[in-house]
Amino acid sequence: MTKTSTGTTKAPFVHEIRVGWGHCDPASIAFTGHLPWFALEAIDSWWETHLGGDGWFQLNIDRNIGTPFVHMSFDFSAPVTPRHRLMCEVTPVRLGTKSIEFRVIGRQDGKQCFEGRFVNVFVISDQHGKSIPAPSDIRAIIEPLLLTLPIEAK
Amino acid sequence: MTKTSTGTTKAPFVHEIRVGWGHCDPASIAFTGHLPWFALEAIDSWWETHLGGDGWFQLNIDRNIGTPFVHMSFDFSAPVTPRHRLMCEVTPVRLGTKSIEFRVIGRQDGKQCFEGRFVNVFVISDQHGKSIPAPSDIRAIIEPLLLTLPIEAK
Amino acid sequence: MTKTSTGTTKAPFVHEIRVGWGHCDPASIAFTGHLPWFALEAIDSWWETHLGGDGWFQLNIDRNIGTPFVHMSFDFSAPVTPRHRLMCEVTPVRLGTKSIEFRVIGRQDGKQCFEGRFVNVFVISDQHGKSIPAPSDIRAIIEPLLLTLPIEAK
Amino acid sequence: MTKTSTGTTKAPFVHEIRVGWGHCDPASIAFTGHLPWFALEAIDSWWETHLGGDGWFQLNIDRNIGTPFVHMSFDFSAPVTPRHRLMCEVTPVRLGTKSIEFRVIGRQDGKQCFEGRFVNVFVISDQHGKSIPAPSDIRAIIEPLLLTLPIEAK
Repeated sequence: MTKTSTGTTKAPFVHEIRVGWGHCDPASIAFTGHLPWFALEAIDSWWETHLGGDGWFQLNIDRNIGTPFVHMSFDFSAPVTPRHRLMCEVTPVRLGTKSIEFRVIGRQDGKQCFEGRFVNVFVISDQHGKSIPAPSDIRAIIEPLLLTLPIEAK
Repeated sequence: MTKTSTGTTKAPFVHEIRVGWGHCDPASIAFTGHLPWFALEAIDSWWETHLGGDGWFQLNIDRNIGTPFVHMSFDFSAPVTPRHRLMCEVTPVRLGTKSIEFRVIGRQDGKQCFEGRFVNVFVISDQHGKSIPAPSDIRAIIEPLLLTLPIEAK
Repeated sequence: MTKTSTGTTKAPFVHEIRVGWGHCDPASIAFTGHLPWFALEAIDSWWETHLGGDGWFQLNIDRNIGTPFVHMSFDFSAPVTPRHRLMCEVTPVRLGTKSIEFRVIGRQDGKQCFEGRFVNVFVISDQHGKSIPAPSDIRAIIEPLLLTLPIEAK
Repeated sequence: MTKTSTGTTKAPFVHEIRVGWGHCDPASIAFTGHLPWFALEAIDSWWETHLGGDGWFQLNIDRNIGTPFVHMSFDFSAPVTPRHRLMCEVTPVRLGTKSIEFRVIGRQDGKQCFEGRFVNVFVISDQHGKSIPAPSDIRAIIEPLLLTLPIEAK
């Protein structure tokens, strides 16, 4: 359970990924180049779940809203392997006027493998260069889900 | 339901794939280069399900058995998009002395998007160049699952 | 040197790919799921070279012409590894009214690793479902490059 | 030209990547999930160039040395597209006792698209969990190449 900005607790959103043979390098662990893709897939799935089925594809194509990345960072703490499913916990941690920050924690068998931070800006999809304020209906959905992070967290 | 070589009918094995924004090209459909990866993931998942949790990773690392590809072919009949999950039906259609052939049919919303055929040979994993007969325990698992294809099918 | 339909000989078009650690699976060879992507990249590069810098991206975005895949097949004969660059020879082998077929042969250190066949149809890019005749300027470029294959080749 | 720790200037190491149709999403720019892969390929190529042909594959397989990632971060400033080659400048910026930090700047047509930082630790390849000091021959190669960054950088 995580405590949100409204003081309520919520079950975290977790996206499950099947790590397979093809993701692994000769060290027999998932190649690092796949991990950002996994985290992005988890964020895409977060949108899909919270916007009534609209992931990035529908958000862009049907609503003309894009959320390109301006920042991404990862700390890797344990290898990812096909021995267990990769459980990616996705949490919005900050909603700016024109941007949103997500935290994604990847775990296998209960053990943390990586933590990532991702900052997206809102844009009109067919005018990619110009950021816009987060649409109000989307803001209304996200605000109650924002995680209250301890002060020391970045 | 499909009719197998033993005359029984079985529910087909179906592996579900979440097609996302990142898989799509500027034509707003999944880029063709991702489709073989999807089909291979479905075959890997077929092994995992039928060998008690052992996918290609465990088959290679724990059992020292590899199944490299010698042939792959696809007919594409409809675009794959993020609008629906991609349901990949995997069926073994031929078991030779040293090889196995799979058919993978990809469907979205009930409509066929592609059909692929894949031939793998059995090898000792750490002696990749030399094919071996299919191990007898694996043969015993696969034989009852083989699909009886109509004569005209390749 | 290859003999073309016009009886002239031409140096084959070869696209070079750097195979890296991240492409390899725990068997220490390139994972099969990457090979179709490599072949497609080589075909994209073929277009770019022969259409004055217009690869699939420019063909679709600037010329509104798409070439989606209807068929793809591969025979794999040797593993692909990072020990050598992967040299992909791309040759158009058939130009139908509305379709084109390419052959891609992948070699490392002179040894053939795979041969693939790829059939694309021409479409208006923003009306993806409907095939069109190959545009005449494109036909004029391709025809002299067509390879005369021996009868027994498919 | 960049100034190194030894006070000499060196031409920067640049790895070129062909961005293609398949890398682009429906916004007609390279999908963010591909960019870390591009940067990693550039770092792999940096090793290959500076270790006499030994990239990550040879470093792991032939020398039993691995360099797994413990940190990765990106700031994205402009979209990556197939209109230009992606030129990835790779520079080692810090060499710790057991770790190395790289900076990768991706540019197209002279314009910066992203800057990334990557921290790897040295390990014995077949004992992945335990870091080791950077091997002395490798340290000797890297030290003269280290970039002297202005204080405010990082």
